[in-house]
Amino acid sequence: MSRIKEDGIKEAQMQVAEIEVMEDVYDRNEKAAQELNEKLNKSKVFALNVMGSPGVGKTSVLSSIIPLLDKKAWVIEGDIQSSIDTERLNKLGIETYQINTGGACHLDSPAIANASDKLLPKDGYLFIENIGNLVCPAEFMIGEHVKLLISNVTEGSDKPYKYPLAFEKADIILVNKIDLIEYVDFDREMFLKGVRALNKTAPVVFVSAKKGEGFEEVTEWIKEKAKAITGE
Amino acid sequence: MSRIKEDGIKEAQMQVAEIEVMEDVYDRNEKAAQELNEKLNKSKVFALNVMGSPGVGKTSVLSSIIPLLDKKAWVIEGDIQSSIDTERLNKLGIETYQINTGGACHLDSPAIANASDKLLPKDGYLFIENIGNLVCPAEFMIGEHVKLLISNVTEGSDKPYKYPLAFEKADIILVNKIDLIEYVDFDREMFLKGVRALNKTAPVVFVSAKKGEGFEEVTEWIKEKAKAITGE
Repeated sequence: MSRIKEDGIKEAQMQVAEIEVMEDVYDRNEKAAQELNEKLNKSKVFALNVMGSPGVGKTSVLSSIIPLLDKKAWVIEGDIQSSIDTERLNKLGIETYQINTGGACHLDSPAIANASDKLLPKDGYLFIENIGNLVCPAEFMIGEHVKLLISNVTEGSDKPYKYPLAFEKADIILVNKIDLIEYVDFDREMFLKGVRALNKTAPVVFVSAKKGEGFEEVTEWIKEKAKAITGE
Repeated sequence: MSRIKEDGIKEAQMQVAEIEVMEDVYDRNEKAAQELNEKLNKSKVFALNVMGSPGVGKTSVLSSIIPLLDKKAWVIEGDIQSSIDTERLNKLGIETYQINTGGACHLDSPAIANASDKLLPKDGYLFIENIGNLVCPAEFMIGEHVKLLISNVTEGSDKPYKYPLAFEKADIILVNKIDLIEYVDFDREMFLKGVRALNKTAPVVFVSAKKGEGFEEVTEWIKEKAKAITGE
């Protein structure tokens, strides 16, 4: 057999192995997500997977939402490295568990199940702040009831067109840093058209975490969705 | 053997398989990167791996740099989906090849080698705009001579602490959207301290792609670095 043929066969074999391993990783994650979700239901905990790019304002948004809620909230804070956001939330009296992935580009269900066992949330809300990344987190369930996606006006209005999966899977979309809208070129119509091409139902809410504006609508939506889990 | 033990062994086997597959993917990529880099050297092409978060201004920065260069520049444009950025660059007369990864969170060397075979750059600059992501692109060589990292003032000053690999591996760091600095809380000292803890040598240049400010220093640096490859 020629060297080129041998290389080709080896490469094809490795590609098959790669697909099998990826499918297995994915399946194990989805199974763990479902188990965690059932466990959270029993504890009357409504879980939100909070996703968005680096620096979009995920922690600031949580700091704005949590004081407006009717029940206690816990946060699982995902970062590659550092505990800066956990320290910020702790200063506000919010009970937080830090996960450092070391390098992994998204959180996974086993890590969230473990963190949840440490926090032991009960009859309230569990916010899971995912790694700052508009790509990988959208692919993996982590036990959540809903996905809360945060975009912002400084990122530009083309994000739904370029990163469709996150926008397609979101249950609610926040557009943060609306206080900067007059200084940037953000085309609201283009953005909304892009979102609606992927997602017909998710509310799109413009907010400013810096000014604390726009969060009444968001918290009302969260409370309404949570009723099915936490009871009234 | 008990069910739990069997599950444990199966899981351990899958984890070994996962590590082996990942190492193989990584090794094949690095080998292809080296081959491509040698090919580019022969064509006197200086290649830059352009990295940064979604919406940080990668395409705008390229639009500001390229007209200031002394030789022709080509762009390989990486996106999950859409060809919005390629259309923008084409309007400026910049020859561009679009790669849509479909979902993959970073570009890889075989895709860049293929794109380079289509563009056939010669005696000039090849900018490779990676997927908007501050995590995954930093892990993979794609044939480049240098990594150009773009951050921006609206992302906040804590990014080096949270996404260390990209800052550690960068050869030059641009901080874009400096025109917005008076409207955001950006702590220049904290940012620079975080960068220097990871990276002693990369120049950090504050720019505004919107205003076209700060790019003389960047283009001088690029021209100087390229001399070794393209000759004077």
